[in-house]
Amino acid sequence: MDKEMNIIEGGVCAPKGFQASAVACGIKNPAVERLDLMLIYSEFPTVGAAAYTQNQVCAAPVRLSASNLKSAEPRAIIANSGNANACTGPDGIVHARAMSGGVAKLLGLKQREIQVCSTGIIGVPLPIDRIEPKLSDLVAGLAYDGEVAARAIMTSDTRMKEVSVSFSIGGKEVRIGAIAKGAGMINPHMATMLCFITTDAAVSKAEIVAATKEAVDKSFNRITVDGDMSTNDTVIVLANGQAGNKTITRSGEGSAEFREALSRVMLCLAKRIVSDGERVTKLVEVQVRGAASHLDAERVARAVANSKLVKCSWNGNDPNWGRILHAVGYSGARVKEEMVSIYLNGVIAAQHGRSAGTDGGKLIDAVSGAEFTVGIDLNIGKGEFSIYTSDLSPEYVEFNRTEYSAVRRK
Amino acid sequence: MDKEMNIIEGGVCAPKGFQASAVACGIKNPAVERLDLMLIYSEFPTVGAAAYTQNQVCAAPVRLSASNLKSAEPRAIIANSGNANACTGPDGIVHARAMSGGVAKLLGLKQREIQVCSTGIIGVPLPIDRIEPKLSDLVAGLAYDGEVAARAIMTSDTRMKEVSVSFSIGGKEVRIGAIAKGAGMINPHMATMLCFITTDAAVSKAEIVAATKEAVDKSFNRITVDGDMSTNDTVIVLANGQAGNKTITRSGEGSAEFREALSRVMLCLAKRIVSDGERVTKLVEVQVRGAASHLDAERVARAVANSKLVKCSWNGNDPNWGRILHAVGYSGARVKEEMVSIYLNGVIAAQHGRSAGTDGGKLIDAVSGAEFTVGIDLNIGKGEFSIYTSDLSPEYVEFNRTEYSAVRRK
Repeated sequence: MDKEMNIIEGGVCAPKGFQASAVACGIKNPAVERLDLMLIYSEFPTVGAAAYTQNQVCAAPVRLSASNLKSAEPRAIIANSGNANACTGPDGIVHARAMSGGVAKLLGLKQREIQVCSTGIIGVPLPIDRIEPKLSDLVAGLAYDGEVAARAIMTSDTRMKEVSVSFSIGGKEVRIGAIAKGAGMINPHMATMLCFITTDAAVSKAEIVAATKEAVDKSFNRITVDGDMSTNDTVIVLANGQAGNKTITRSGEGSAEFREALSRVMLCLAKRIVSDGERVTKLVEVQVRGAASHLDAERVARAVANSKLVKCSWNGNDPNWGRILHAVGYSGARVKEEMVSIYLNGVIAAQHGRSAGTDGGKLIDAVSGAEFTVGIDLNIGKGEFSIYTSDLSPEYVEFNRTEYSAVRRK
Repeated sequence: MDKEMNIIEGGVCAPKGFQASAVACGIKNPAVERLDLMLIYSEFPTVGAAAYTQNQVCAAPVRLSASNLKSAEPRAIIANSGNANACTGPDGIVHARAMSGGVAKLLGLKQREIQVCSTGIIGVPLPIDRIEPKLSDLVAGLAYDGEVAARAIMTSDTRMKEVSVSFSIGGKEVRIGAIAKGAGMINPHMATMLCFITTDAAVSKAEIVAATKEAVDKSFNRITVDGDMSTNDTVIVLANGQAGNKTITRSGEGSAEFREALSRVMLCLAKRIVSDGERVTKLVEVQVRGAASHLDAERVARAVANSKLVKCSWNGNDPNWGRILHAVGYSGARVKEEMVSIYLNGVIAAQHGRSAGTDGGKLIDAVSGAEFTVGIDLNIGKGEFSIYTSDLSPEYVEFNRTEYSAVRRK
């Protein structure tokens, strides 16, 4: 990042006045000892904002958290991995409320001041009997250490995702800390994706809501791994004002800097989520320009980014621009085939809707790295959109073949 | 099929007055001797109808055939495999016209009386210099043998797809013969899919057009393998009237029987295309009912049938109804989670949006066969839709990783 924003240590505990904790409950498998329940707690009152999955089938904790956020500012986030508590009927709400109510009591807070999240398998009852006995250890373990929280929300993630930054607003040092988990089902309009962000900036409620929406649109809503949309996606931002800056109001002083920083933190984690997607080997940015409209550009970007055949070809270092062009054609956007140009990592592959005659070896090189861009110019307008996506590997399919049976057999 | 319709031998040459032929041109690879150019010819005038890909990026032969069909009734179909002649610029049209014009001259027909099709890789110039010298052999080889044509259009198909039937209309024996190729990119609104159908029924132009549209909607537009839509999909139906029946007019005598037979022939081939899709191990019928509207039912069916995660689970015999329910949730259809029931091959897996408590072993058995149904009842209306789809295998991805590089390296 640039000179105005410094990467710092500490994750969600880098901002002043935030503590975290995690314990192992054996939620997925009692025989395996791994952190699977975490807590983030603000010592001071906050203003909060959140974005939840748009899937109509949504998990019980998402319903409860959305309801809580309407009636109170959140002081803490409790989240488990290993079970999504989704498609679990009325018991699901009872269990989510047991998590939030239990931890609220121990913290001396109201149930509605807790945000509660779950991630993992869908349709299996949450083993609340393994969670409740651990709540007192969870609260007792609170400390200025964010990393345990980042570890506890991992599911099939292979790497912990944590970032924290500091920057200056009106002469005061302000901090943002964030953790995320991703892996499967990373998708437009979010994924089995959790992201918890803390900041010690003083921010008005209206500003935190607007800044969160803007940052999510620029980051998590522009990534896709497999085109599926999770029942549990949640982004939560808590701001406790301990940095002592003059409160940032909507479009007021410091708003631009704060929004820029929040967006960059989310984009950083969003890209890590894609590149750590299940059995992903490539991070690909699909950049569309020259579309008849912004919406048309988005249609083209999403069609290409989600095409199974296009993603297979990337996995094989195969510069198959013809498959890209065919996805452009069925995207629903207005397209003039003979106007389309396609660039692979900046190297022109197709022009006027046909091969640009570029040497095949050069094109193979262009798509052989772990990160590359695919540029698509429709050459008929000014609409632009870009999205981050991944390849599709045989190992992804192998990995996703038997999740339900494996859990049910235990 | 039932007693009114008999399966007969002969493929596209089963109906009276149709001949076929095929030759090897080495289109994909000059070193490999395999049939890759075919011709179907009616000895008598016909009425014809066709359905072409709706992809805005469409192959040169599709454009030429659509244009030809507007100005003349087709007497012959020429088709090659090994190269799609798509995304090939102005040369593509020149090459397609060389195929149709060349064969027309040899047959004593006009160019516009020829339908021309190509299937194979996109974006590589058609090697017309290997095709033109073989046209005279192709025409000289015409005979009452449909199988060679079925073989010559195969690409990654592992099985030839051919069916022919006879039935009675007004006391006269009428025949329909058909061949098809599918494999990759099988999709709603058709796929890299070719289907050529001949019939000796006497049918009016208006009836053949209406019957073809109806049959395509009931068959090829209800299959999906990978959600991609090809640049080359084409269904062509030729009727030459040699059965001697009283001409079937739109909604007139014999129309119901003819449409029923045509739809069943297409559905038979459509199902074979799915089950022979690239590295497919399962044929799954997704049946949606109880939706708020027909369109909502279709949205749900397509979302489930195209979900990568759902398809992975089927590959692993994994009764992961939670993934199905999450795809229902993001389909865009109106859904009340607590109303949804899901059946795996008739065995209830979820009720009221949560586990129905069915024994896991029973559910695994339900999805372990090579063919099964997935029933989804939204329980809020009367909308229904069903679609045929497949699983997604690691081998599919492996197979699709390097097509372009492999061809370009030759």
